Amino acid sequence: MIKFDFQHAHLNENLKDYQEAVTLAHTQLHEKTGAGNDFVGWVDWPLNYDHEELERILATAQSLRGRFDVLLVCGIGGSYLGARAAIEMIRGLYCPDKPEVIFIGNTFSSTYFKQVEAYIQDKDVVLNVISKSGTTTETAMAFRMLKQLMENKYPAEECRQRILATTDRARGTLKELADREGYPTFVIPDDIGGRFSVLTAVGLLPMALSGIDVRAVMKGFAQAYDDLKNPDLEVNPAYQYAVCRRILEKQGKCAEMLVSYEPQMTMVAEWWKQLFGESEGKEGKGILPCSANFSTDLHSLGQFIQEGRKMLYETLLLVETPTLDGQFPYDEADLDHMNYLAGKSLDWVNKMACQGTLEAHEVTGGVPNLIITIPDMKEESFGYMCYFFFKACAVSVYLLGVNPFNQPGVEVYKKNMFRLLGKH
Amino acid sequence: MIKFDFQHAHLNENLKDYQEAVTLAHTQLHEKTGAGNDFVGWVDWPLNYDHEELERILATAQSLRGRFDVLLVCGIGGSYLGARAAIEMIRGLYCPDKPEVIFIGNTFSSTYFKQVEAYIQDKDVVLNVISKSGTTTETAMAFRMLKQLMENKYPAEECRQRILATTDRARGTLKELADREGYPTFVIPDDIGGRFSVLTAVGLLPMALSGIDVRAVMKGFAQAYDDLKNPDLEVNPAYQYAVCRRILEKQGKCAEMLVSYEPQMTMVAEWWKQLFGESEGKEGKGILPCSANFSTDLHSLGQFIQEGRKMLYETLLLVETPTLDGQFPYDEADLDHMNYLAGKSLDWVNKMACQGTLEAHEVTGGVPNLIITIPDMKEESFGYMCYFFFKACAVSVYLLGVNPFNQPGVEVYKKNMFRLLGKH
Repeated sequence: MIKFDFQHAHLNENLKDYQEAVTLAHTQLHEKTGAGNDFVGWVDWPLNYDHEELERILATAQSLRGRFDVLLVCGIGGSYLGARAAIEMIRGLYCPDKPEVIFIGNTFSSTYFKQVEAYIQDKDVVLNVISKSGTTTETAMAFRMLKQLMENKYPAEECRQRILATTDRARGTLKELADREGYPTFVIPDDIGGRFSVLTAVGLLPMALSGIDVRAVMKGFAQAYDDLKNPDLEVNPAYQYAVCRRILEKQGKCAEMLVSYEPQMTMVAEWWKQLFGESEGKEGKGILPCSANFSTDLHSLGQFIQEGRKMLYETLLLVETPTLDGQFPYDEADLDHMNYLAGKSLDWVNKMACQGTLEAHEVTGGVPNLIITIPDMKEESFGYMCYFFFKACAVSVYLLGVNPFNQPGVEVYKKNMFRLLGKH
Repeated sequence: MIKFDFQHAHLNENLKDYQEAVTLAHTQLHEKTGAGNDFVGWVDWPLNYDHEELERILATAQSLRGRFDVLLVCGIGGSYLGARAAIEMIRGLYCPDKPEVIFIGNTFSSTYFKQVEAYIQDKDVVLNVISKSGTTTETAMAFRMLKQLMENKYPAEECRQRILATTDRARGTLKELADREGYPTFVIPDDIGGRFSVLTAVGLLPMALSGIDVRAVMKGFAQAYDDLKNPDLEVNPAYQYAVCRRILEKQGKCAEMLVSYEPQMTMVAEWWKQLFGESEGKEGKGILPCSANFSTDLHSLGQFIQEGRKMLYETLLLVETPTLDGQFPYDEADLDHMNYLAGKSLDWVNKMACQGTLEAHEVTGGVPNLIITIPDMKEESFGYMCYFFFKACAVSVYLLGVNPFNQPGVEVYKKNMFRLLGKH
């Protein structure tokens, strides 16, 4: 379902020289014997996920359907990016269907919170709060304020339907609060870290609430499990990508720019940045993950990529078939001299822009390009793509000699902040 | 109005060693004797801008006020980013006031176009098309389709009020088309390049149409002209920033991450990326511009910044006073254990997060930090900030020995694309 092409990357090593190291990483991953092995629950999740909970997610979404204008998703980091990536990719940026989805609890910005609060005042709302512990400060603060808002808006019985908590199975502040208030709760598994959690209840519940077919997402996810379980580099595109990253790094490339030609893929790139940056940015190592949306950013970052410092490579995340397309219209007067494109499909023009840019960056600019092609921006492709990136990331980071599954550096600012906030 | 602080940057050179080079760059800029001197019209623009045209912008906005739900801004690159940066920064991301502003003509994505087209079907629309030549493909294609949509929606006389063209003073495809159709036209000056054009009609018209007080924007712009016209590094924060960038580059930092703690500043960062990336990414040189929004992205990029490859420095773009604030509420039950913050202002918490992060990244992580502080996210601050970044950019790039005002590399992909599109 995913095609990977490294013919435009100008690698000066052979992938097959990495086969042994890849096989080792693969084995460590599947046998749970590598670094961070407490957090590899995602590897078999496409088979082992809690099917009963998926049914409960679907039933919950069904029971609330049509009863709300706005879905508030309150979470940060791994409890935010995956759902947003899926919802924007699949529904697009100007989706005609309800509900509108607003992400909150992912910032301390007072202006942002107050504007959203005013915006939803007269709208019907469902609130999904997502936090493993319930103590993440951004999310906990927003949730307290939104809970009060909901309690002022709806009677207690209604709140117990409209507030949904995704949290630890048994313990923690949010779990206790939810049980006490009678909110339905959904489970964040213990052995799946935040950035690998999008296809647990963390992402599936907001997706289902926003009208996405989560069964199809899980179907693509399972398909990827099957397709990518072979350690042989010849046939495993995820592992090819994993190795290419390391080769390009050795060739002096310290930044990877994930490029899409679809604005609705912008948040997929943000999700990907967390996945790779947080997995590999340790011990002074790692490739800086950044992103761009073309052709938009060809008119901003294009100059730097084409002629600036030769520090980066591009990873194109291309979509074969767009969700919507149209034909460029003929115009009798042709005052804009654009009739040469009349009758062409809009997406064909996008594809030509992509091809011309690839040639410009690769050949003229000397910028290596990796190309990942997904069939479309629908459910199955999203699920498949998630697993593709999970495996590519884990193996790539194992090849770097780093534990992909911890994030010790994230705690440093929190410690300082808690001291300044006077938290005991 | 802007404070600049480099005490957290750990520079191993003295700024004053650069005074001579800075004075030279300053003189070249103000006397129009440096590289790219055909495009330094922005330097005196705060004084010399066309006051009559500003009045016409205000009158146009006034005459259309209340008559449209959606403002479509059709442009790309420098004809897109500045207006979007201003509108999001000043109005916020969930502005309660009409019009909604939608940016279009900045992508070839068919799904994006078709979704927006459907979205505005039953709404009242004003369309501002922005292109110097009128031949920029993304913008010209979108404009042809939107023009037909407007002509189907409104009678000819109404179209002549609702379609506004910002383009060359006298020549070009769009100017000719607009004159022929009778659309009001506004001027993109010849001696101001796209990425320096936000405070010409390019940005001012969409700002005014969206309800922003453009006179106040120009007041801040003029204030910055006055404050930043002294080449003395001791008193010119824009030039201090310009020099710090070069010193950090020499210290091995090849990427600059512009960081804000306000989500509504995200597009300011995108605008900044074009300004710096397109000005300096030439001849194999330049610092890669990237951006993050904290605390959101502390939960994604934070790990890499804290403990990953030591390749970047951060430039904090801080806001002293938020547009809206609130008090964190007390909760009798305190099930979330958050009462220790009860009574605190939301913005105070944001400030503590910022302080704790600065300490984490600078002291523990060894990441240099530059700090730019603006008073608020209102009109005057926006205008002031634009000029601050313009001058910092121009001088910084002159110090690099590169022409800041051309963008030869942007043409390469276009040439290839036109060949593939069959354009003669």
